[in-house]
Amino acid sequence: MAQSWSFLDICESDFRPLVVIELAKSAKAETIEWFTKRIVDKKAKGGAQLLVKRLLTEKEGENIYLVGASHLRLLLGAETVGLVKECNDNSMRTFTYSSRKTFKDFADDNHDFLTMAECQYIIKHELENLRAKDEKMIPGYPQAKLYPGKSIVRRLLTSGILVQIFPLHDREELKKLCHSWYGRVKVGYQPLDEIRCYFGETIALYFGFLEYFTFALIPMAVIGIPYYVFAWEDYDKYVMFATFNLLWSTVILEVWKQICATMTYRWGTLLMKRQFEEPRPGFHGILGINPITGREEPVYSSIKRQLRIYLVSLPFVCLCLYFSLYVMMIYFDLEEWALDYHEENDSNFSSLMLFVPSIIYAVVIEIMNRIYRYAAEFLTSWENHRLESSYQNHLILKVLVFNFLNCFASLFYIAFVLFDMHLLRQSLATLLITSQILNQFAESLLPYWLQKRYNRMKKRLCSPKIDKDLSLVEQVNLEKEIGTYCGTFDDYLELFLQFGYVSLFSCVYPLAAVFAVLNNITEIHLDALKMCNVYKRPFSEPTANIGVWQLAFETMSVISIVTNCVLIGMSPQVNALFPDSKMEHVLTVALVEHLLLAVKFIIAFVIPDKPRDIQIKLAKLEFESLEAFKRQ
Amino acid sequence: MAQSWSFLDICESDFRPLVVIELAKSAKAETIEWFTKRIVDKKAKGGAQLLVKRLLTEKEGENIYLVGASHLRLLLGAETVGLVKECNDNSMRTFTYSSRKTFKDFADDNHDFLTMAECQYIIKHELENLRAKDEKMIPGYPQAKLYPGKSIVRRLLTSGILVQIFPLHDREELKKLCHSWYGRVKVGYQPLDEIRCYFGETIALYFGFLEYFTFALIPMAVIGIPYYVFAWEDYDKYVMFATFNLLWSTVILEVWKQICATMTYRWGTLLMKRQFEEPRPGFHGILGINPITGREEPVYSSIKRQLRIYLVSLPFVCLCLYFSLYVMMIYFDLEEWALDYHEENDSNFSSLMLFVPSIIYAVVIEIMNRIYRYAAEFLTSWENHRLESSYQNHLILKVLVFNFLNCFASLFYIAFVLFDMHLLRQSLATLLITSQILNQFAESLLPYWLQKRYNRMKKRLCSPKIDKDLSLVEQVNLEKEIGTYCGTFDDYLELFLQFGYVSLFSCVYPLAAVFAVLNNITEIHLDALKMCNVYKRPFSEPTANIGVWQLAFETMSVISIVTNCVLIGMSPQVNALFPDSKMEHVLTVALVEHLLLAVKFIIAFVIPDKPRDIQIKLAKLEFESLEAFKRQ
Repeated sequence: MAQSWSFLDICESDFRPLVVIELAKSAKAETIEWFTKRIVDKKAKGGAQLLVKRLLTEKEGENIYLVGASHLRLLLGAETVGLVKECNDNSMRTFTYSSRKTFKDFADDNHDFLTMAECQYIIKHELENLRAKDEKMIPGYPQAKLYPGKSIVRRLLTSGILVQIFPLHDREELKKLCHSWYGRVKVGYQPLDEIRCYFGETIALYFGFLEYFTFALIPMAVIGIPYYVFAWEDYDKYVMFATFNLLWSTVILEVWKQICATMTYRWGTLLMKRQFEEPRPGFHGILGINPITGREEPVYSSIKRQLRIYLVSLPFVCLCLYFSLYVMMIYFDLEEWALDYHEENDSNFSSLMLFVPSIIYAVVIEIMNRIYRYAAEFLTSWENHRLESSYQNHLILKVLVFNFLNCFASLFYIAFVLFDMHLLRQSLATLLITSQILNQFAESLLPYWLQKRYNRMKKRLCSPKIDKDLSLVEQVNLEKEIGTYCGTFDDYLELFLQFGYVSLFSCVYPLAAVFAVLNNITEIHLDALKMCNVYKRPFSEPTANIGVWQLAFETMSVISIVTNCVLIGMSPQVNALFPDSKMEHVLTVALVEHLLLAVKFIIAFVIPDKPRDIQIKLAKLEFESLEAFKRQ
Repeated sequence: MAQSWSFLDICESDFRPLVVIELAKSAKAETIEWFTKRIVDKKAKGGAQLLVKRLLTEKEGENIYLVGASHLRLLLGAETVGLVKECNDNSMRTFTYSSRKTFKDFADDNHDFLTMAECQYIIKHELENLRAKDEKMIPGYPQAKLYPGKSIVRRLLTSGILVQIFPLHDREELKKLCHSWYGRVKVGYQPLDEIRCYFGETIALYFGFLEYFTFALIPMAVIGIPYYVFAWEDYDKYVMFATFNLLWSTVILEVWKQICATMTYRWGTLLMKRQFEEPRPGFHGILGINPITGREEPVYSSIKRQLRIYLVSLPFVCLCLYFSLYVMMIYFDLEEWALDYHEENDSNFSSLMLFVPSIIYAVVIEIMNRIYRYAAEFLTSWENHRLESSYQNHLILKVLVFNFLNCFASLFYIAFVLFDMHLLRQSLATLLITSQILNQFAESLLPYWLQKRYNRMKKRLCSPKIDKDLSLVEQVNLEKEIGTYCGTFDDYLELFLQFGYVSLFSCVYPLAAVFAVLNNITEIHLDALKMCNVYKRPFSEPTANIGVWQLAFETMSVISIVTNCVLIGMSPQVNALFPDSKMEHVLTVALVEHLLLAVKFIIAFVIPDKPRDIQIKLAKLEFESLEAFKRQ
C-alpha cells in the first residue's frame, strides 16, 4: 500500500484508520490540501491535530482519506468531549489527562482504554469543530463562503465538496458482537454493554428500551388473551383491564427511568455535562463570547430563536395539522360516497370502488408525511439551535405531533364522533397489524434483501474471498457504498405509535398487546441484523436517556387514560347505570377519570427517577466537586 | 454589670450578645457548667467554640446566658453553613474563609460583613449541632440519656433543662425597618431586602409572595367587579371569566418562580447546597458514615422511614380524612333535621335551633384541626427525616390535605351532590369573609392587643424609660416573655385557602378576588406589625423558594380547572345546548376541560422556572465548579 503520511507531531508507525472522509471526485487539489492541512495542524494553530492518510484505490479520481489520531491525542480529545470513565475506586469520573492514572484499566501502552467507538466519536467531534478563522471562503470555491466560527466540515458538506464522513467497522469485533447478539438461538437478554461499546449509547439505549418495553408488555398481553379466547364483553371486565393497563403503563415508564439511569451511570453518560457542549456543527452566528464558559464561539440571540419557533414553526405545524384533519374528513366523505355508490349499483366495479378511498388516503398520508418531514427538518435547522440535543428535541416534537394525528385521528373520529365501537375495534386491529407488517418489511427486510443482492454483485466484481480477509481498501470501498443509518428516530416512532395502539383504546381491543409483543420479539432480531449488516457503522452518540421520547410516552399514557375513561363512560352499559340523571353520569365519569389521573401522577411522583444507590453516587460526586471548588 | 466571661480562645473585649439561652431555674450547677463548657470548647474537642456570658438579673435563680462569637469564629461558621455572598466581580459564591478577600465589602475589621441575622443563624446552627461524644447522659440528669451523635441541645430541650433559645432583637435596626416597612403611609413595595437582612430569607420570601400574590389578584378583582355591579348572570360571561381566571392563575404561579429565583439569587440562597445539610437536630440514628460526605454522623435506614410513612402515616391521614368527611355528613344531616324541625314548629326556639348545627360543626372542625395538627407533628417527627426541609414538607403535606378537606368538602358537597348553585355562592361568600375576618383577628389583632396590655404592665413593673434606652438586662427579660413566632406555616395556609376560595368556584362567585385583595392589603400591614412588635425575633432560615407551597398552589390551580369546568358543564344553560345527546354533552365538557388542562401544562412548560440571566449565572458557576474539579 502506498504511503502518503501527512505531517504528524508524534510519528506513529501503527496508524489505525478510524474514520473515512470521502471527498468529491471533482474536488480541487488546492482545497484538499488546505482541508487536510487544517485537520493535521496543531490545536494552537486552529487545526484538529489528527492524522490523515490517503487511501489509494484502483479507481481513478477517488478522493478518500482515512483519519486517525495518536494515542495521546485521543486521550486529550476524551478530556475535551468530557468522557466519563470508571476510576480505580469504582466511582465514575470525568476523564482528564492529568488524572489519567486514577482510571481503571489505564496504562500508557493500553490502547484499548478508549473503545473504538469512543475514538471515532472524538475524531468526529474534533472534525466538526474545526472552525474557520480568517478565511473568507473555501480555497478554490469562492462561492462557498466562510466566516469566523463557521464549521468547515459543515460548509464542505453543504457545498458538495465533502461527500460523507463515516466511521469504519471493526470486522473482528462486529463478528463477535453479531454472535452474542443474535447469532445463536437463545432466550435471554441482549448484550447491551457490548452493543454500547460498538455502536455507542444512543443505539444501545434504544435496544435496551425495546427489550424492556417488550418484557413490560407481556403482563398486558397475558391478561389480554382470555378476553379474546372467551370473547368476554362484560363491561366490568373491560374496566378492570383498562384500569390495570393505565396504571401499569405509568409504572413501566417510571421504572424505565430508573433502569435507564443505572445503565447510563455505568456507561458514564449520566454524568456527562451536556450544557457545556460545543455548539452543534450546523449552528451559526456572529463570533462572540459565550457568557457561561467565557470562550469565543458563535452566538445567536435566544429571543430571535424563540420568535422563529413561536411565530413561524408553531403556526406552520398547526396549519399542517389542520390540513391533515381536513384530508381525513375528505377521506371519510369519500368512504361514505363509495358506500352509497356500492349500495346503489352493487356491481364488481362498485365493490372495487370501496377500496379506492382507503388506498388514496394511505398514499396521501404517506406523501404528506414525507413532505412534512422535510419541512420539519428545514424549519428546525433554520431555528438555529445551539445544541444538537435541542435541535433533535424540536425536530422530534414536530414530527411526533403530526404522526400522532395522522395515525390516530381516524380512530378518534370513529370513536368519539361516529360512536361505532365495532368499527373502532376493526380499524384498530387492521391498522396495528398492517402497520407492523409494513414497517418490519420496509425497515429491515427490504434493505437487507437489497443489500444481499448488492453484496453478491460486489463479490463478483472485486474479490472472491470477501468477508474472509478483506483488505482495508476493499472494506472502505464496500462500506462507503452501503446505506447510512438515519438514527433511532424511526425506530422510536414505531414503538411510540405501537404504544398508542396498545393503550389508547385498550378497553375495546385487549389483544393489541399480544400483537405488540410478537412484533417486538422479531423487531429486536431484525433491528440487530439491520444494525450489523445493512448499514454503515453509525457514529457513537453519548446520551443519558431517551430524551424527548420519555415525555412522548408519558404524554401518550396520560392521553390514553382520558380516551379509555370516555370510551367506557359512553358505553351502553355505563349509560344504563344512570338512566335518569345526565348530570350524575357526567360527574361519575369525570370523577373516575380524574381519580385515575391523580393516581397516575402520584405514582409518577412517588417512584424516584433514579435508584437510591445512583442518587447517592451522584450526590457524592456533587459534594466532592463542591469541596474541590471551595478548596480552590 | 457583673462580668462572668467564659474562657475564650480569642479574648475580645467587645462581646456582642446575639443569642439568648434560658435554662430552667432548677438546672443543676454541674449541668450548666458542662453545657457552657461544651459551648465554649474548641471545635477539635467537640465543642462549638462560641462565647458565653451569664446575664445577671435581679431575679433569684434565673439561668440566662448570652451567646456570642468572635468575628473569626463567625466567618468560619459562615463557611460551615455554606453561606453564599456577593463577590467583588458581582457573582455570587459560596463563602470560604480562605477566599474571604474576594468578597464584596469584606475587610478584616468590617464586622458588618455578616448581617446580625446571619450571625444568629450560624450560632443556632453550631449550638444545634453540638453532639454528644461518649457521654451516656446529661451530667446531673441520669434520666436524660445521650448517645454518640445525639444533639445535646435537643436533649436538653426535651428533658426541660433548656427552656428556650432565641436571637436578640436589634432595637436600632428594628426601628429603622419598622419605619420603612409600615411606619409611613405610602403606596409601594415592601423593603424586602431589609426584611431579609433582619428576619432572614424564609420570612422575606413570605412577604414577597404575599405582596406578589396581592398584585397578581388585582386583574381578577377588576374583572370580577362588573359581574357584581351589573349582576351579570350570562353563561358565556362566566365562562370567559373562569377561563381567564384559570390561565391567569397558571401564569402568575410560573412568573412567581422566576421572581423568586431572582430574589433568592440576589440573597445567595438559590446557590446554597441543601443536600449537604447537616442532619436536623431531631434526627436520630446509630452513628455511621454518611455515604455522600464520608463523615461520621447518625444514619437511619431510608427503607424504615418509607415503611413508617406508607404503612403508618398514610393510613392514619386517610382515616382522618374519612372521619372528617363523616363529620361533614352528620352536619348536613343535622342541618336538614334542624330545617325540618323549624318547618314543623316555627317558633323562636326552632329558628335559633337553625344555627346550632353550624356552630357545632365549626367547633368540631376547630377541635379536629388542633388534634390533627398535634398528631401530624408527632407522626412526622417519628418518621425521623434527616433534613429539616424534608420534615417540613411532610408535615405541611399532611396538614394541607386535611385543611383542604375541612374547608372545601362542604362546598364540594353543595356543588356536586346538592347541585345548589345559589347555596354554593352564599356559603362561599360567608366562608370566605368570616374566615378572613376571624383570621385577621386571631392572628394579628388579638396577640397585638394582649402584647400592648402586657407591655403596659411591664413598663409599670420595671422601668419607666422603657423603649428609649433599654438596658440589655431589661431587653432580654422583656423579649424572653413575649410569644414565639411559629413560622410561616399558618400564614401560607391562610393564603392557600384564600386561593382556593378565589379559584375553585370562580365561575359562581367572581367577587371573591375583590375580597381577597382587600384582605391581603391589610394582611401585609398586620403581619408586618406582628413580626416587629408581637413576637420574639425568629431565627433566620435560609431558603431558595417557598418549597412545597408552590406545589400546593399549582395543585389547587389544577383542581380549580376541573371544578370550574364541571360546574359550568352542569349549568342549565350548557345543558340546554345539548337537548338530545347526553353523549355529546359529556364529550364536550370533557374536551373543553382537557384542552384547558393541556393549555395550562403547556404554559407551565413554556415559561422557564428561572429568568435567562439567572440561568446563565448558574450555568457559569456550575461550569467553573466543573473546571475546578477537573484541575484538581
